[in-house]
Amino acid sequence: MLITLLTDFGHRDVYVGVMKGVISGIAPDARVVDLCHAVPPQGLVSAAYQLGAAYPHFPAGTVHVVVVDPGVGTGRAIVAIRAAGSVFLAPDNGVLAAVLSGDAVEEAVAVENAALFRASVSATFHGRDVFAPVAARLATGTPLGELGPARDPDGLVRGEPGRLLGGPTPSADGRGLDGAAVLDVDRFGNVITNIDGRLGARIGSITVGELRVVRFARTYGEVEAGAALALVGSTGRVEISVRDGSAAAVAGGVAPGDPIRVELGEGTP
Amino acid sequence: MLITLLTDFGHRDVYVGVMKGVISGIAPDARVVDLCHAVPPQGLVSAAYQLGAAYPHFPAGTVHVVVVDPGVGTGRAIVAIRAAGSVFLAPDNGVLAAVLSGDAVEEAVAVENAALFRASVSATFHGRDVFAPVAARLATGTPLGELGPARDPDGLVRGEPGRLLGGPTPSADGRGLDGAAVLDVDRFGNVITNIDGRLGARIGSITVGELRVVRFARTYGEVEAGAALALVGSTGRVEISVRDGSAAAVAGGVAPGDPIRVELGEGTP
Amino acid sequence: MLITLLTDFGHRDVYVGVMKGVISGIAPDARVVDLCHAVPPQGLVSAAYQLGAAYPHFPAGTVHVVVVDPGVGTGRAIVAIRAAGSVFLAPDNGVLAAVLSGDAVEEAVAVENAALFRASVSATFHGRDVFAPVAARLATGTPLGELGPARDPDGLVRGEPGRLLGGPTPSADGRGLDGAAVLDVDRFGNVITNIDGRLGARIGSITVGELRVVRFARTYGEVEAGAALALVGSTGRVEISVRDGSAAAVAGGVAPGDPIRVELGEGTP
Repeated sequence: MLITLLTDFGHRDVYVGVMKGVISGIAPDARVVDLCHAVPPQGLVSAAYQLGAAYPHFPAGTVHVVVVDPGVGTGRAIVAIRAAGSVFLAPDNGVLAAVLSGDAVEEAVAVENAALFRASVSATFHGRDVFAPVAARLATGTPLGELGPARDPDGLVRGEPGRLLGGPTPSADGRGLDGAAVLDVDRFGNVITNIDGRLGARIGSITVGELRVVRFARTYGEVEAGAALALVGSTGRVEISVRDGSAAAVAGGVAPGDPIRVELGEGTP
Repeated sequence: MLITLLTDFGHRDVYVGVMKGVISGIAPDARVVDLCHAVPPQGLVSAAYQLGAAYPHFPAGTVHVVVVDPGVGTGRAIVAIRAAGSVFLAPDNGVLAAVLSGDAVEEAVAVENAALFRASVSATFHGRDVFAPVAARLATGTPLGELGPARDPDGLVRGEPGRLLGGPTPSADGRGLDGAAVLDVDRFGNVITNIDGRLGARIGSITVGELRVVRFARTYGEVEAGAALALVGSTGRVEISVRDGSAAAVAGGVAPGDPIRVELGEGTP
Repeated sequence: MLITLLTDFGHRDVYVGVMKGVISGIAPDARVVDLCHAVPPQGLVSAAYQLGAAYPHFPAGTVHVVVVDPGVGTGRAIVAIRAAGSVFLAPDNGVLAAVLSGDAVEEAVAVENAALFRASVSATFHGRDVFAPVAARLATGTPLGELGPARDPDGLVRGEPGRLLGGPTPSADGRGLDGAAVLDVDRFGNVITNIDGRLGARIGSITVGELRVVRFARTYGEVEAGAALALVGSTGRVEISVRDGSAAAVAGGVAPGDPIRVELGEGTP
């Protein structure tokens, strides 16, 4: 059985390794795949986007675990949902927004059965004390119903990630897009937006920070080195790039949630 | 069988990958878990702390390998010890201090049997040439006794990590703590101290660098964003944090081994 | 079966995790080992060096995948070759130079059989859509011949990596070396050169950037802390180091491909 981990724990500490230790003690045959641990600290938008980009590519039955959890130790709920043939375990804070909007939720529960947790639960490291042991038990066949009481899927938090992942809407005058924003910035400095790629052909210009782009292409190779372009990225969203360079750097620094300005092209409302 | 790796090799090179290649050639069924590879170069204190935070959460029988080894290529010893139902393989330089102080050593040997090493041992990469092949053989059942001659556990190096991990002692006037210090700084800028959490209730103030904290809490959620607090962290040590911020940054930069000043509260000697 | 991944994807995104998801869907029993994902973006020299440092230490039958691919989405070829008992899957852009110069190629094909790819191939993420599914199929026994038409091994690109990895040649006056260059800089600031370690004994001085070294040693331990030295590194190349420090920093910043100046010692032509 496969378990994926998506956290904001970074790589300089043993937090992720400790979670794997707990998992291997309960589910020695489970395989753990690191989705990403470099989500910006408490970066709900980035985490939600990254989970959405990844889970459709994993086999059915995978247990996806998200620990981006600014509310750890407070009364926030942890939830487990079944969707798209897999299970998702996360704080109820919006990090599941892409799953909730992309797939039907077959089952949802609040994770409250402390018998499945570490005997002693700390106030600050629920990754070790709650998420890891529960994920391991899910991987060994524990049904969702044993985790806690059912939850109404419609009541799950979508929050800021849900609002952004939903994509922008046409502006009142039909010449722009309201709510266009940055979802993520990748290692290459590509700026991933929340704009559906199918709108790409209608865009006249797109501006993020100090970078305004009017060139649309299908691949980086179509423009010269150093030139800016927009294209439909691998998750079907419009991305802003600089060939052999960093669009985020040229734009003067970009972060998830930053606004994007779009002018739709003439005659293509 | 499970093998964990804790090194200061970082992530920008293939050193860790090469160790896994060597392991997989000798012990194809062993599973390798990365504990952490971002220990500061030659950071013995950080490595010892991180190992201590992690090993209790792994199943019995795990082979824990530490390659933080400023003495590589010199006459320093490599040792293997059995403790807490598991095996630890490391240079004899203090990185095992948390294990040595936390659990009884059942067996200790010097790793000297070159028949278990790579045929050609380099002067600079014992991770590949000694630690990986020996760890793989331990995982496939080679007994410790085959690695080399027995060592007296009491003679193993505890060094600087041992001194710091032992925790501070009350000062002469009973109003402070002597030897309080930083063990580690995590990704979130939390400053992990060597102070036993059970002393937390007696602390009036705690100062690291330019940051003085008088607020104690159980969770981050009890203080407002940006406020500094101290709490008992997930390993039972006192930690200094800034909610939704970095205590290390506010303190003006902090490194393992840095001193911490503690004033015990009135009437609570 | 073992699959290794060497990419320039870094660790802040889910790109590598997504590749592992695709692999696990097709080859659930394959084990994936991360060789390195911190190759500088589009760093062909660094990737070729790192692959060369790693592959000899993996068991026969391993599938090595390299996705450092500035030409993604253009007409560049993807190739699969069989050499040294293993399989290598990579863009035909020079990243295989160390393999091509180190081992005989038993079979080479162009990867063109789209039936083995993801049903929909994006223009920017061939790691997910081409490399991962093809690697998974290789790991489950698909023969190279099914991937596409045979290629003449002599026609494969060696490029800049091939030129540098070939090592320098004696200068016209026999007092220096032409073509000496930096192959890589590791986490510790060690500067790895393309000079064969067997030439080490003949070198009088070696200069990279602002750092000139005249001291040769076998291990770091032979010099005092802070002193610069040259030694034969773990891959048999001459490396420039500063004990307990960073040679790259002392040199004023160094990158793969940078030139190195060598004066051969007197009387040792």
